[in-house]
Amino acid sequence: MLTSFSSYLFVGAHPDDIEIWAGGLIFKIHERNKTAKVYCVVLTDGSAGQGSVQERYEESMEAAKMLRVDSYEFLNFKDASLDFNVELSKVIANLIRKYKPDVLVTHPASDKHPDHAAVGLATSKALFLAMVSPEFLDYEPHLCRNVLRFVSDPFSSPSSRVYVDISEVYEMKKELIAKFKTQLDVLEPYLQLNELYGRMIGVRAAELFEPEVLIF
Amino acid sequence: MLTSFSSYLFVGAHPDDIEIWAGGLIFKIHERNKTAKVYCVVLTDGSAGQGSVQERYEESMEAAKMLRVDSYEFLNFKDASLDFNVELSKVIANLIRKYKPDVLVTHPASDKHPDHAAVGLATSKALFLAMVSPEFLDYEPHLCRNVLRFVSDPFSSPSSRVYVDISEVYEMKKELIAKFKTQLDVLEPYLQLNELYGRMIGVRAAELFEPEVLIF
Amino acid sequence: MLTSFSSYLFVGAHPDDIEIWAGGLIFKIHERNKTAKVYCVVLTDGSAGQGSVQERYEESMEAAKMLRVDSYEFLNFKDASLDFNVELSKVIANLIRKYKPDVLVTHPASDKHPDHAAVGLATSKALFLAMVSPEFLDYEPHLCRNVLRFVSDPFSSPSSRVYVDISEVYEMKKELIAKFKTQLDVLEPYLQLNELYGRMIGVRAAELFEPEVLIF
Amino acid sequence: MLTSFSSYLFVGAHPDDIEIWAGGLIFKIHERNKTAKVYCVVLTDGSAGQGSVQERYEESMEAAKMLRVDSYEFLNFKDASLDFNVELSKVIANLIRKYKPDVLVTHPASDKHPDHAAVGLATSKALFLAMVSPEFLDYEPHLCRNVLRFVSDPFSSPSSRVYVDISEVYEMKKELIAKFKTQLDVLEPYLQLNELYGRMIGVRAAELFEPEVLIF
Amino acid sequence: MLTSFSSYLFVGAHPDDIEIWAGGLIFKIHERNKTAKVYCVVLTDGSAGQGSVQERYEESMEAAKMLRVDSYEFLNFKDASLDFNVELSKVIANLIRKYKPDVLVTHPASDKHPDHAAVGLATSKALFLAMVSPEFLDYEPHLCRNVLRFVSDPFSSPSSRVYVDISEVYEMKKELIAKFKTQLDVLEPYLQLNELYGRMIGVRAAELFEPEVLIF
Amino acid sequence: MLTSFSSYLFVGAHPDDIEIWAGGLIFKIHERNKTAKVYCVVLTDGSAGQGSVQERYEESMEAAKMLRVDSYEFLNFKDASLDFNVELSKVIANLIRKYKPDVLVTHPASDKHPDHAAVGLATSKALFLAMVSPEFLDYEPHLCRNVLRFVSDPFSSPSSRVYVDISEVYEMKKELIAKFKTQLDVLEPYLQLNELYGRMIGVRAAELFEPEVLIF
Repeated sequence: MLTSFSSYLFVGAHPDDIEIWAGGLIFKIHERNKTAKVYCVVLTDGSAGQGSVQERYEESMEAAKMLRVDSYEFLNFKDASLDFNVELSKVIANLIRKYKPDVLVTHPASDKHPDHAAVGLATSKALFLAMVSPEFLDYEPHLCRNVLRFVSDPFSSPSSRVYVDISEVYEMKKELIAKFKTQLDVLEPYLQLNELYGRMIGVRAAELFEPEVLIF
Repeated sequence: MLTSFSSYLFVGAHPDDIEIWAGGLIFKIHERNKTAKVYCVVLTDGSAGQGSVQERYEESMEAAKMLRVDSYEFLNFKDASLDFNVELSKVIANLIRKYKPDVLVTHPASDKHPDHAAVGLATSKALFLAMVSPEFLDYEPHLCRNVLRFVSDPFSSPSSRVYVDISEVYEMKKELIAKFKTQLDVLEPYLQLNELYGRMIGVRAAELFEPEVLIF
Repeated sequence: MLTSFSSYLFVGAHPDDIEIWAGGLIFKIHERNKTAKVYCVVLTDGSAGQGSVQERYEESMEAAKMLRVDSYEFLNFKDASLDFNVELSKVIANLIRKYKPDVLVTHPASDKHPDHAAVGLATSKALFLAMVSPEFLDYEPHLCRNVLRFVSDPFSSPSSRVYVDISEVYEMKKELIAKFKTQLDVLEPYLQLNELYGRMIGVRAAELFEPEVLIF
Repeated sequence: MLTSFSSYLFVGAHPDDIEIWAGGLIFKIHERNKTAKVYCVVLTDGSAGQGSVQERYEESMEAAKMLRVDSYEFLNFKDASLDFNVELSKVIANLIRKYKPDVLVTHPASDKHPDHAAVGLATSKALFLAMVSPEFLDYEPHLCRNVLRFVSDPFSSPSSRVYVDISEVYEMKKELIAKFKTQLDVLEPYLQLNELYGRMIGVRAAELFEPEVLIF
Repeated sequence: MLTSFSSYLFVGAHPDDIEIWAGGLIFKIHERNKTAKVYCVVLTDGSAGQGSVQERYEESMEAAKMLRVDSYEFLNFKDASLDFNVELSKVIANLIRKYKPDVLVTHPASDKHPDHAAVGLATSKALFLAMVSPEFLDYEPHLCRNVLRFVSDPFSSPSSRVYVDISEVYEMKKELIAKFKTQLDVLEPYLQLNELYGRMIGVRAAELFEPEVLIF
Repeated sequence: MLTSFSSYLFVGAHPDDIEIWAGGLIFKIHERNKTAKVYCVVLTDGSAGQGSVQERYEESMEAAKMLRVDSYEFLNFKDASLDFNVELSKVIANLIRKYKPDVLVTHPASDKHPDHAAVGLATSKALFLAMVSPEFLDYEPHLCRNVLRFVSDPFSSPSSRVYVDISEVYEMKKELIAKFKTQLDVLEPYLQLNELYGRMIGVRAAELFEPEVLIF
């Protein structure tokens, strides 16, 4: 997978979502495929949690540098307020058309966190909208053929699983997560999950994703 | 996927199951990875359907030649009689230990066909048994880390999907299926499904699988 | 439905199961279609509940007379001991082949009562076995194309529903149920459910079924 | 079924939805019940797909003539933009009240196509709204007691199935579908599905529906 | 449970929802824990059903007296018009923050009644919003740690169940329900369900709830 | 809960299952209710994992002492070989009749571990068998009215949850788990889960259970 795809779009609801659930994957993409493009988009301003909007923005920018992404965009929707509707689907459809990724990685629709669920549901609609020709969208249509979902709700485990062995980049991931100073107590248990997932497949640490569509 | 794995075990309940649901995948494996090992096992004798047991065995042998597999084993259980229990799980666990595949490809537990479902359910147990150390099994323990399921019940569609684009080998697959002379009317609609799956991803023909676990 | 089908097989796990869940339907079948055939089979001897095996047998015979069925068979398996396996599936497959019904009506696989669930699961396998040609079955193959399931677990409501308006035969059904003297306290709440189902569709009383396959 | 109901309302999200999923059923209704009323409503203008809005409208009008429906209404909502909310539910509730059908046939809520899903979800709410007395609706309340869902997402197969044997009208259905000149490549695989469904029940061609509520 | 929690918030979509599904529980709370606080909130005005808005309000006030609740609030949203969105979630989040209950009892998200479902879905979001710090909410954040759902859709039975034995207060509950003079025919079948639930656990009458989270 | 129930039966498939999933609960039961009875039964001999059967037996006996249980029974079925069938159900039904607990705590039927799933499924049947009067069981019938399931498959999270706050006994639980010397590397990640569950409800450590039936 890591060698055959050439561009990835990661969409997170909040600052730190992409890093905590897929930071290791991004590091591995770079290691395996020097020319792969990685785009990140964060939908909300993070105002509902700990830390100020400005602090969280700066933490994300620090992380972005470390991740060496090709683009890191903030859309600044109000945190804790995303609704699943056509408007949100259009926003995500436009992102898919703008970045034209091979692979989209984002939240699952079944996530208990309401913002995550809204993004997850709207993405399903967006994938469809991005492909057809509605005049209310910008950019040219794009069929994004591979979709992975974060396991951003650890209590909503997928029956289909893609594990990414992040053992070789795990120290870097810990360093990456340490950038999010305002969120450390929230994020640490998820690093423990990386170790638990690792044990499941017999390695030091792993990230877990739900494959929605993969094409070989 | 097709380049990173080095051995595959396909387990089908009946003669022709492996070919109709995964024949294209096997051709592609050979094209992409000259050294990959492919093992096939058919559990029952096919006595419940059209054609005699002998005819069906010969058809499978013809197919096996065309597929250039490293092994093609018949276990000759009675067709239409597989029960999901520890005995069947042991049989499959022993296969996993014997062939030690990177990837196991077999029926899903949700399949409406009772033999398929029995195999699907027993496989989940077998994957576990193959890994631990029960003295009642032969061969050394093996952890098979990648599992794909056929979509052998077209009315039981998976929400997680792996499509394999078989456009380039589709003519060969049709030739392969033509070897199963006693089953042609049963098998043809499934070739039409390959074309339908192809349309879904914008290619001529595709095979569809449900990913259970994939490791990258 | 009641005019277009010409034969029905009802399979109940225990004495009184057919009557309490489908007694009204049987009365209505007779009213709408004088030539329709109705066959009933009870799998167990009823020994686990109230009343002796002999008493329960006699109650069923009384009910059978009132229902004017074409056949009422007792298989006398041990109550509370049905296991879902190929053996039970063969028993039911043979019943399907023997009676060759247009419509099969029996328990759902999702039923919480273990005997009901075993019958429900085995029936799915039996429908398949009845159709193919395994030499271990008696009678000629039969494709039973219509299948309804009792809602014999009132806590396991189907999302697909067939209501049969039994208002016109409800007094007869109450009389029928009164034949089961050893079971009256168990059966009465289910008559209340008939009234509740009736309210849902705006009539006095109704029986509820889950349609599995219906062909028009 | 086809003789006992006297009026049908078909609601499709786009031009051609009703015809491709239920065209055969409409032909059969006319054959079995000369006095049955058939009403069709198309919610969106079809602007997101191939063909202009005007072309698609004309194709539908051609089809409507062939189907001999009692009414064929276009509501002209923007294609690819339906949201599931009270507003859409009111629209459908008003249609139920206006046409007062015995049977409503429309998309399922589980459909992957976002417009289909919005219609499917809103219909559940609409059936309820049509029945109670909210002052914000037009027309008198109506309890629509029979509901069938299209299988408009072939990857979202229902466990409860109604097959309509359309063998006798299949040539007419193919002629009907040929009216949709701008959509032929999209529609053809679905005709193949009609043949696949037919094989499942041993006939030439069939349409498949998910029964939600049927009353006998 | 009834002794260890000190405050309860009941949220019903319509007048009489709280009483019919949880009236017995409220009586028992008072019997077991003299100091427990009970707050009730009714979201809509009840204008879609039988009886005028004024009549229904008065019936609820009569019931409130009998229930001896600490607060009984009417929010007067339009009946049959609740949409699941961030706005409704904010309303419920504010209620959780205002009353700061140990236990929240409300409709399940799976309820077929559209208003019930909207409340059920919005509550999941509200529980989250009540806990974080969005500036658009009033009152201080509150983590409500125990959540029970009504079984307000008797056809949507929970697999996890909390039964409350209301035998000792059942006469009072019947008296309570009799206050709702405009709704008697609607409510009576639900009292029969209380008796059916009672039989399931071997007592005279019981109320059934779905436990979402309980902490001991 | 911890004060109102007077006897508990814990059934684990393997040595250490009860301790790792419910050790904290047992300590808390003793603290809250000095007279509560606690019975433990382990079904298999533990021969499939690390450590000899003898070593694992001795570890369990050490743990039993620390837990101060009223009975700790080993049934010595072969590890990794439990099948779900009437025989296993009878075994568990006899345990329910023998110990007559208020509360039964055991594995869930949805568990991915095959032995756990067999126990989980057989328990549902056993609860029924324990209640009726089949002559093939020993002891008098018993209706066990409260049932909790372990979350012994951390990837199969229940939507209904009971958390037990074990903060006050967490040090003791760690000491308890340390008795299982042959299993330490397997067990440690589950202690981390206790801490993760604790964070979810704002305490140091918690055990998680799925409530099946609870009566108040």
